[in-house]
Amino acid sequence: MRLRTSCNIKFEISEPTPFILMLRPRSGNQQWVEREEYKITPSIPVTEFTDNYGNLCQRLIAQPGQFLISTSSEIVTSNFIDQDFGASFVDIQNLPDAVLSYLLPSRYCESDCFYEMSSSITNGHLYGYNQVSAITNWLRDNISYLPGSNNQPLSASQVNIRRFGVCRDFAHLGIALCRSLSIPARIVVGYLYDLEPMDMHAWFEAYVGDRWYTFDATQINSPGGYVILGFGRDAADVAIFNQFGPLVYPTEQLVKVEQISSDT
Amino acid sequence: MRLRTSCNIKFEISEPTPFILMLRPRSGNQQWVEREEYKITPSIPVTEFTDNYGNLCQRLIAQPGQFLISTSSEIVTSNFIDQDFGASFVDIQNLPDAVLSYLLPSRYCESDCFYEMSSSITNGHLYGYNQVSAITNWLRDNISYLPGSNNQPLSASQVNIRRFGVCRDFAHLGIALCRSLSIPARIVVGYLYDLEPMDMHAWFEAYVGDRWYTFDATQINSPGGYVILGFGRDAADVAIFNQFGPLVYPTEQLVKVEQISSDT
Amino acid sequence: MRLRTSCNIKFEISEPTPFILMLRPRSGNQQWVEREEYKITPSIPVTEFTDNYGNLCQRLIAQPGQFLISTSSEIVTSNFIDQDFGASFVDIQNLPDAVLSYLLPSRYCESDCFYEMSSSITNGHLYGYNQVSAITNWLRDNISYLPGSNNQPLSASQVNIRRFGVCRDFAHLGIALCRSLSIPARIVVGYLYDLEPMDMHAWFEAYVGDRWYTFDATQINSPGGYVILGFGRDAADVAIFNQFGPLVYPTEQLVKVEQISSDT
Amino acid sequence: MRLRTSCNIKFEISEPTPFILMLRPRSGNQQWVEREEYKITPSIPVTEFTDNYGNLCQRLIAQPGQFLISTSSEIVTSNFIDQDFGASFVDIQNLPDAVLSYLLPSRYCESDCFYEMSSSITNGHLYGYNQVSAITNWLRDNISYLPGSNNQPLSASQVNIRRFGVCRDFAHLGIALCRSLSIPARIVVGYLYDLEPMDMHAWFEAYVGDRWYTFDATQINSPGGYVILGFGRDAADVAIFNQFGPLVYPTEQLVKVEQISSDT
Repeated sequence: MRLRTSCNIKFEISEPTPFILMLRPRSGNQQWVEREEYKITPSIPVTEFTDNYGNLCQRLIAQPGQFLISTSSEIVTSNFIDQDFGASFVDIQNLPDAVLSYLLPSRYCESDCFYEMSSSITNGHLYGYNQVSAITNWLRDNISYLPGSNNQPLSASQVNIRRFGVCRDFAHLGIALCRSLSIPARIVVGYLYDLEPMDMHAWFEAYVGDRWYTFDATQINSPGGYVILGFGRDAADVAIFNQFGPLVYPTEQLVKVEQISSDT
Repeated sequence: MRLRTSCNIKFEISEPTPFILMLRPRSGNQQWVEREEYKITPSIPVTEFTDNYGNLCQRLIAQPGQFLISTSSEIVTSNFIDQDFGASFVDIQNLPDAVLSYLLPSRYCESDCFYEMSSSITNGHLYGYNQVSAITNWLRDNISYLPGSNNQPLSASQVNIRRFGVCRDFAHLGIALCRSLSIPARIVVGYLYDLEPMDMHAWFEAYVGDRWYTFDATQINSPGGYVILGFGRDAADVAIFNQFGPLVYPTEQLVKVEQISSDT
Repeated sequence: MRLRTSCNIKFEISEPTPFILMLRPRSGNQQWVEREEYKITPSIPVTEFTDNYGNLCQRLIAQPGQFLISTSSEIVTSNFIDQDFGASFVDIQNLPDAVLSYLLPSRYCESDCFYEMSSSITNGHLYGYNQVSAITNWLRDNISYLPGSNNQPLSASQVNIRRFGVCRDFAHLGIALCRSLSIPARIVVGYLYDLEPMDMHAWFEAYVGDRWYTFDATQINSPGGYVILGFGRDAADVAIFNQFGPLVYPTEQLVKVEQISSDT
Repeated sequence: MRLRTSCNIKFEISEPTPFILMLRPRSGNQQWVEREEYKITPSIPVTEFTDNYGNLCQRLIAQPGQFLISTSSEIVTSNFIDQDFGASFVDIQNLPDAVLSYLLPSRYCESDCFYEMSSSITNGHLYGYNQVSAITNWLRDNISYLPGSNNQPLSASQVNIRRFGVCRDFAHLGIALCRSLSIPARIVVGYLYDLEPMDMHAWFEAYVGDRWYTFDATQINSPGGYVILGFGRDAADVAIFNQFGPLVYPTEQLVKVEQISSDT
C-alpha cells in the first residue's frame, strides 16, 4: 500500500540545545520512499550522518524560541508482513558478520537473564520462526498493551515484572527473549497504519531463515502498513530525538498516517 | 538559496535490464534536503544501499516497455561557494584516513602522469588552496568549455590533448592535477542553478585547510547554487545511472533547476 | 616500553560449539604490534571480521575434545598514559559522528540514571578532563577494588550499590558517570603491565579535548604499559570470548605480561 | 599448507617522507595468520587504519637516514585453489551491495573498452566460472610472462597492445575482461609459494557462483600456497608502499616464502 505519514514536533527552547534526530525514512528492502519532506523552522544549519545501524541521523543546535520539526513522507510498503512458519534457526556460524551484534545484550534487553524463560515459552516449538512466533504469542497473552502508560524506556526485566506496557516495552521483552535463544533480534521504530491510538510505533525483527522478519506483539492479525524510521539494538539506539543539556519536552507532537492507495 | 530541482529520464526497455541509479540527494554539510520525490513508473521493487563514498544508490530491474524515472527535490544550499585563499596544504600525515583514497590515480584521473604539468601551473603559488585555484584558472584559460561535445567520459590525459570538453572533462583534468601535487580531490555530480544549457553537472572538490572546497572551472564568478547527488574518485563512481546488459539510451532526459527563494 | 603479552585459554568441549573471540591486538594511535601469534589447537577453520567498533573478531566452531587458544604479542606502548588536565569538554555539536554512539546508555552503563550523582561528584571542577579525573578519583575513594570478586558483568547501578568490584565494574560505573555528563566514554579490554594479580584487564576512555584519554580507577599512579585488545560500549561488546550453546568454562586461562625493554 | 613469508625493504631517506604501507596480512576466509612480525627500524610512531577494501594500512613518516621495514608471517593457507567449473554467472540484481564497485572501470582496468574482446574470448563458454577460466587461458596463451619486465603499472589496454608483462599486467587485463562481461573482479597482492623468481605477486579474483574465486594466469597448474596482503580495484589501490614527496626507491627489497608444513 501507499501511505502518507507525517510527524510534527514543537519545542520551546530556552538555551541553545543540541539535538540528534532520526526522522528521515530510508528506502530499503521493505519500503520505497517516493516523497519525503523535512523542514526545520526557523531554518538553521543541519548536517546528516549515517550511524552504525545504517540510519540517517540529523544533527543541529536548536536556538532559543519556538523550534518546529515538520516531516512527512509517501511510502510504498507491503500490505501484509511476511510470515514464514518453519523458517529455520540460523546456526551462529552461518550468521552474516553484520548480524552478530544483535545477539548481544543491550541497555534495555538483558538477554543474558532470560534463557530459562524463553526455553520454557518455546518448549516444543520448531527452532527458528516458530520460536519467535511463540514468544510473540506469549507477549500478547501475558503483557497488557497500554499505550501511553509510560514515557521512559523500561528494560525487558522491568517489563516482565510489570506485565503491562507500551509498544517499546513489548519489543524489548521480545528481543531479550529471542537473543537469549541465540536468535538475533533488533528494535524498529516508525509508523504503523491504523495504529490505535495513532503515535510513533516500535516493534521488533528477528533473524531466522536467512533474513529479518517483522514481529509485533501489540497487533493481532499481523497487518501490513509498517513504515521504518530506524533500526537498533534497543530504544537507546533509535530515539527519534536525542536532546542534550537541560531537558526539554515537546509542547506538541502530532503523528498521522493515511492510506493513499492499496497498490504496492 | 532554496532550489527546486527535477530530473526525469525515460527509457524504452526491450528486455529485463538491471540498473543502479544515483539520483537521491543526501543532506550533509553543504546542503539540506527539505523535500524530495523519487518515482519509478511503472512501479517495481527497488532497494537502496550506501556505497563506499556515502552515496545513496538505488537498484532495480527495469521491465520491458516504457520505464520512467521522475525525481525532484527542494534543497537549501549556499548562495556562494566557500572560498579561502591561503587555506594551507595538508601534510599527508595529517589527512584523515578516509581522505587518503582521494590521492590515488583512478580510471579517468591518471594523476601519476601529471606532476610536471601541475608543478609548472602552480609554480609560485602558495601551497594549498591557491594551488588549486591556479589549476582552476589554468583550466578556464586553456580548455574550451563545450557542453554536449562528448557523451563518454574522457580521461584527464585525453582531455589535456583535446583541449575542449564538457564539465566532467574539466573535473577529471582538475582532479588529476591536484592529486599529482598530493592534494586529495574528488568529483561531484549534481545540479547547478543557472547552468547554461541546463543539464546534470559535474565539478570537483579539493581537500585543503582541513576541509573540502568546491572548484568549478566551467563557471566564471564562483556562483553558489550547487546541489550534490554524489561523490567519487571520478566519473566511473558517480554515474547517475549504470545500466547492465545490452545498451539502452534514454529517449528523454529533462533537467530543471529553479530558485524558490534566496534565503538560506 | 616494549611488552610481551600472552594469553592461553583451554576448554574441554563436549559438542560442537561456536565461538567469537577478540584476542588479536590491532595497531593504532596508542600501540604498535611488532609481533603477534595466534594458534588454535587442534587446527580448525577460523575466519576473521571487523566489528562495529573496529575490533578484529575471530569466528570458529570448537570441536569436541580439548580446545586450546594460544596467543602472544610484542607491543610498543607508552611508558605513561597521556594526561591533560584542563582538556576541555567537547560540545555535542563538535563531536565527530563516530563518537556520538558512546554518549548513549548501554547494557551495563545506565547513564540515563546517573546525572545527579555525576553532577555532585564533579561539582566545582572544570568541564572536560577534570570532570573525568574527579570521577576516577571518586571511584578510587568509594569503590573497593577486589580482583576476582565476581565473574559476571555487573551494571553501573549494581556496582554503585555494592561498592566493591573488579576492574570491569570500575569501568562500567566510570563510563555511566561520564556519559551522564554528555562526555563520550567507552570500555577498553586488554593487558596491563605489572597488574596485580595478573589477568586480563579493563579500563575506560573518555573523549575530551578532541581525543580519547585513558582512565583507570583501579591503579594509583597512572602508570603506562597498556595493551589494547578491543573497544566497546561496555563489557557486552568486548568479551574476549563469546560462546554459544551450552555453557563451557575455561579449564585454564593463563595471562602473562613481561617487559622486553623500556624503549618506545 | 603452512608458509613462512618475509619481506624486508630498505630505503635511504633524505627528507621526512610520508609512507602508507600495506604489509600486514589479515586473517579471512582464505588464510589464517598464526604468527606475524612487523618492525620498523629505527623505531618511529606508526598508526594503522582499515581502508575501503578492508585492508590494514600503516601510516608513518620516515626520517632521514636508513629506513628499514621488516615483516614476516606464518600463514595457514590452502594447498590448492578452489576451482568450480560450472559455477554460474551471478545476475547483477543478485550481487551483494559490497561487490558492485568491482564492476566499474578503474585506473588500470578500462573495462569499458573490452566488451568485444571478452565476448570473442568467451564465446561458446558457459556463463560464469568457465568464462573467467577461458579468459585466464587466453592470457596464458597470448601474453608472455616476463617477470621484471616493467616497474610501473600498465593499464589493461597497454598490456593488450604490448603482449608481455609482469604478474600485475596479467591481473589488470584479466580483470578488465571480466568486468566488461559484468563479472565482478578484483586484484589481490601478496605472496605465492614457489614463485619463480621469488618476489611479491599479484593475481585476481572473480565473483561467480556467489563467492570470490582465485585466478592466476601466470601459473600453469593452479597450485595453492597464496598469501594475501590486500585487495583492491587494481594496482592503484594495493601498492605495498605508497610514498609521498620526492621519489625514493628501495635500495633493497627481499621477499622469501618457505613451506613449514603441508598441513592445513
